[in-house]
Amino acid sequence: HKVDMKSLKLYQFYHSKPFAWLRTGVIFILHILAFFEFPSSLSWTSDIRRQDERIQLPCGVTEGIELMCLLFLLLDVVLKTRIYGYKSLYLNKWLFVEIVVLCLSFIDWIVSMSVGCGEVVRIRRMIRPVFIIQNSSLMKKILNSLRKTMSQILGVLLLMALHLYVFTLLGMLLFPKPKDNDTIHDINNLGELNDILIPSNSSGNGTKPSESTYFRTLTESFMSLLVLLTTANNPDVTLPAYTRNRLYAIFFILFLTIGLYCFMNMLTAIIYNQFRDYFKNSMQSSLMRRRLGQRAAFEALKYKSMQLNHSSSLQDKTSEDSQREGVSSRDLKVVISRAKIEEEIKVTLIDTIARGFTQDQIMTWINFLSVLKMTEMEKDHKEKPRIRWFTHHPRLVALQKIVCHKGFSYFGNVMALINVILITIELATEYDKSLSSSKSALRIINFLFILYYVVEQSLIVICMGWRRYKYSWSNIYDGSIVLILLLSELVTVALYGFPFFSQREIHGNFTLWNIVRVINILIMFRLLRIIWHIQAMAIVAHTLLDLVKNLQSFGGILIVIYYSYAMLGMEIFQNKITYPTKLGNESLAVCGTYEQLEYWANNFDDFAAAVVVLWDVMVVNNWFVFLDAYAKYTTKWSYVYFIIWWLMSVVIVLNLFTALILENFIMKWDKFYDHSRSEGRRR
Amino acid sequence: HKVDMKSLKLYQFYHSKPFAWLRTGVIFILHILAFFEFPSSLSWTSDIRRQDERIQLPCGVTEGIELMCLLFLLLDVVLKTRIYGYKSLYLNKWLFVEIVVLCLSFIDWIVSMSVGCGEVVRIRRMIRPVFIIQNSSLMKKILNSLRKTMSQILGVLLLMALHLYVFTLLGMLLFPKPKDNDTIHDINNLGELNDILIPSNSSGNGTKPSESTYFRTLTESFMSLLVLLTTANNPDVTLPAYTRNRLYAIFFILFLTIGLYCFMNMLTAIIYNQFRDYFKNSMQSSLMRRRLGQRAAFEALKYKSMQLNHSSSLQDKTSEDSQREGVSSRDLKVVISRAKIEEEIKVTLIDTIARGFTQDQIMTWINFLSVLKMTEMEKDHKEKPRIRWFTHHPRLVALQKIVCHKGFSYFGNVMALINVILITIELATEYDKSLSSSKSALRIINFLFILYYVVEQSLIVICMGWRRYKYSWSNIYDGSIVLILLLSELVTVALYGFPFFSQREIHGNFTLWNIVRVINILIMFRLLRIIWHIQAMAIVAHTLLDLVKNLQSFGGILIVIYYSYAMLGMEIFQNKITYPTKLGNESLAVCGTYEQLEYWANNFDDFAAAVVVLWDVMVVNNWFVFLDAYAKYTTKWSYVYFIIWWLMSVVIVLNLFTALILENFIMKWDKFYDHSRSEGRRR
Repeated sequence: HKVDMKSLKLYQFYHSKPFAWLRTGVIFILHILAFFEFPSSLSWTSDIRRQDERIQLPCGVTEGIELMCLLFLLLDVVLKTRIYGYKSLYLNKWLFVEIVVLCLSFIDWIVSMSVGCGEVVRIRRMIRPVFIIQNSSLMKKILNSLRKTMSQILGVLLLMALHLYVFTLLGMLLFPKPKDNDTIHDINNLGELNDILIPSNSSGNGTKPSESTYFRTLTESFMSLLVLLTTANNPDVTLPAYTRNRLYAIFFILFLTIGLYCFMNMLTAIIYNQFRDYFKNSMQSSLMRRRLGQRAAFEALKYKSMQLNHSSSLQDKTSEDSQREGVSSRDLKVVISRAKIEEEIKVTLIDTIARGFTQDQIMTWINFLSVLKMTEMEKDHKEKPRIRWFTHHPRLVALQKIVCHKGFSYFGNVMALINVILITIELATEYDKSLSSSKSALRIINFLFILYYVVEQSLIVICMGWRRYKYSWSNIYDGSIVLILLLSELVTVALYGFPFFSQREIHGNFTLWNIVRVINILIMFRLLRIIWHIQAMAIVAHTLLDLVKNLQSFGGILIVIYYSYAMLGMEIFQNKITYPTKLGNESLAVCGTYEQLEYWANNFDDFAAAVVVLWDVMVVNNWFVFLDAYAKYTTKWSYVYFIIWWLMSVVIVLNLFTALILENFIMKWDKFYDHSRSEGRRR
Repeated sequence: HKVDMKSLKLYQFYHSKPFAWLRTGVIFILHILAFFEFPSSLSWTSDIRRQDERIQLPCGVTEGIELMCLLFLLLDVVLKTRIYGYKSLYLNKWLFVEIVVLCLSFIDWIVSMSVGCGEVVRIRRMIRPVFIIQNSSLMKKILNSLRKTMSQILGVLLLMALHLYVFTLLGMLLFPKPKDNDTIHDINNLGELNDILIPSNSSGNGTKPSESTYFRTLTESFMSLLVLLTTANNPDVTLPAYTRNRLYAIFFILFLTIGLYCFMNMLTAIIYNQFRDYFKNSMQSSLMRRRLGQRAAFEALKYKSMQLNHSSSLQDKTSEDSQREGVSSRDLKVVISRAKIEEEIKVTLIDTIARGFTQDQIMTWINFLSVLKMTEMEKDHKEKPRIRWFTHHPRLVALQKIVCHKGFSYFGNVMALINVILITIELATEYDKSLSSSKSALRIINFLFILYYVVEQSLIVICMGWRRYKYSWSNIYDGSIVLILLLSELVTVALYGFPFFSQREIHGNFTLWNIVRVINILIMFRLLRIIWHIQAMAIVAHTLLDLVKNLQSFGGILIVIYYSYAMLGMEIFQNKITYPTKLGNESLAVCGTYEQLEYWANNFDDFAAAVVVLWDVMVVNNWFVFLDAYAKYTTKWSYVYFIIWWLMSVVIVLNLFTALILENFIMKWDKFYDHSRSEGRRR
């Protein structure tokens, strides 16, 4: 990119933190709009029986915000092309895509406004997530990796398709009995048995499909096996054949073993294999870039200091010091003190230099690197604030010792555990009374425990001092929960009196019911602190928390896919399912249908509902209910939408997630065990 | 172990191939007995409505065979203790277990015979699989690895249990509405909405449980979430709450994300991490042992040849050759020609020696190793038989060239594909006529194609010659399928005439129907040969086939677990579910129950059925139907049986399988790509 002064300033501005935050914020607002745009998700339920409750924003509100966001993004693109030059348009594919998307969005927006928000297809919503991808380099990398591994994935998918195809035809050839039984005269032993074995009482209420519905036609057979591959109709689809002849179970077991357990795991293996390298490479290359930058800084400083030496101190040319390749530590200090980095890091850096080197010592590249490595150290090595002992009160010191002892913390955990167990017992035995009466055993228990918690926390604050208290996250977590607990309990006491001797017993009050629930839930969250005290759990929880940090880019991809596909689903299936006003018993009587299961709330009528449907399909269980329902209310082509989503979500995204977890977890785990082993050796 | 002559002979006999085969055979027979013992699996169906069809072997038949097997295994144990000495009893844990199992089996057998095969509990069946484990060192290793990783698995399981517990209580506190709605006067906005939102038409046929049945009591709430963790009741359990307020979806999504996607993948990661090292270690140690043996052989030979040199040729002490550390190649040849190895390997070994060394040259350890490494080479490098060209018939040579060209093979694939596509079309359009008429388009098509296949195969045999033909497995596969096709077609033609001009059209004949089905199935299997011609598929299929070889020990563990647990299930649940003779509509009307879904064939009444039920539970979909049914017909404690099976099969076995596939696949894949890359470089 250009390197003149103006461009550099622009570059600095563009890559400054506030601007990046602003950009992220704008993209966030643009995407969150989906919940408020026309079929807004602002209703308590997505149940189609209650669709009229929806809050609708007047036309132009969301569109106005959208326009502002789009204009900002346009500015962003213009800046980018100014900085990187117009040539980058041809080279940077993603930037080009972003510009196309922006143009399309503006055109679509104008169309939308000109017809008064009443248009049918809104493409701009579907292509919005391009901005998310464009804003994150890590996501682009993941997508690139996915693209590279696509040929291998396609190999497995092809084989899976062949597997499915062969078994579809096999199923059609194996299972159905000849339809016209009466014309068969030459019945052999097997046939005879079959006829006897199927009693006619399956006609009870006609809910049970015979195997002819599973394997009679090509589409049915294929869909049965595709759904079986996701295990969603497992024992049901096997039953008609299995009831006839138990050997048919082998067919299904073979099908699932190859399809589900082999091919699916192979897909995981392929994606994992790809991303194992990806993580390694991306980390190596980021380290590489950092080193490169550091080396460049070193060379620049060296050059500068050599120039300085030449100009200012020409007299001592004989001293070879300046000729030795290196940087004066004084120069480095000056540069560091001027740099835009956190104050804390600055202090440590200058300290390190002062400790290791004299004022004018020349630093070699190795020295230079060792100093800069200090910035890479983890920050959590900062000092623990000391406890200030109340030395002039011997009794208080004893109390302090008790409170600061490990045992006190364990005791607190045991108390929290006992509290939760008591809640469990109360809920299990006296469910209704516990929650809706102002004078229940549960309320008394919780009152006493909350009293204890308050005392415990204040003791800790007093004994340890505020600085030491707020040093630990777990204390802050505990403290804030106890604070809310105290407030809620005060409110209940104020409203309904003490639980022991309330004059009037209030029963079934809704506010009381809610507050009691909140108190119980908070107490349960307080229990979670015991995780950190049980080692086996602590390791797992720790790695899990670390995972969350590393999975941001994956989360981004998840959002992108969900967003676009939910929008597409809304365009296709919106308002397609309607609640029949006169619902006869006949459609409710067929078990396992959308209507009988009352899936009315799962539809594509607004964005939030569409996301939940896609989630349900990703979880895969009972997804054929949606398949069947949408095939019934629209056409059979709706299968394609759901199958593609299944392929995308289950085959790609979930395997990607598994791969990321495997990679991250194994890395952390190894590091943890290496660390603990080396610590054990040190002791 | 002992090293005197007798013990060594015994050792050699014990580790000889025939004896190992015999032992494996006996163990196999002992285990296969399960299908024939008292509630024998010899019936066409396990449907409880037709239980009387079961073939029962008279008392004493299976018991006699069992006794013989047990006696053989006793002999085996006695031999083992003789060889390894009695001390090994204390040292070898598995041997000790085997002896205990043998004793228990004999006692149980005697009890069984004394009460005339009518006893209730038969422990010996459950503990039988110990013999399988004892017979395979690899399985013992896997079990050991599992035991080592158990603490980490327990960590995750503990966290998962806590997760489940917290969400159970949260669910109980969040979801149910207060029961006594009428006593609530202070209804707030949310409550008001709730009451309106749930229309009372769900009482249609009373099949839909409200949220109170999912989250009202502790057991229900826990079981709902446990089943949700396996996704088996996914959208259903969420619906009552989700229909009320769409924000409740967050609860379920959070629950599944943490429980299913994080914890389950972490379990995979832990097991994979353990077994990644395991495979590496086990392969290294087996290579180590091989090298150790080779070194020992080398040292022994050197010692011997030095002795020989000293005794026979004392005259040329001055020659330093014999002092050089090494083995004379002549000695090695003699040893090789006497050794008990395959003739083919012998020839290659002696050839290598003859080629590389003169008659009496002394071989160093490096030379020795390079010769022995020839035995490790893969055998498929054996020479391809040449095609014998019919040089005196120029036309035949042209034909030979055509047949041997790659294109001919591709053409054959295309024909097979066309045939299958035509079958698909015929089945899709004229299903019933195709299968049950003697004069259908399908029969004509298949007749013509089979004619083509016969011609194709005979051309290949003639042109390539028999030796070259049988060299390739794919030819044998093709050839045998075509042979069976030809025979079946001949039978149909003999019975029902040619499909074109049969005088009488036979319709709906059962034999015809079966033969037509067989022909079509065979044609489809023939299609599978195209896999090897599409590279992307060929790699995957190749690794899959290689997997099968490597998964033997895993298969053994699967059999052990299934066997024991199915036997346990039979002891507990046998004949517990009975078909109600007067089945009212009321029990059939409740959707999603065992009775309505007609799962009658899935029960624990015989071994084969029990295995299928366990398979269904492992696949997890709809497993709560079994849970509910057995809780209803027996007690709620039956939950324990199924939950433990779920933990064992899904959490341990399936993750183990995933780990093995990941490990194997990544290894093979890397090797393949390295290989293809190096080949690409060589060209």
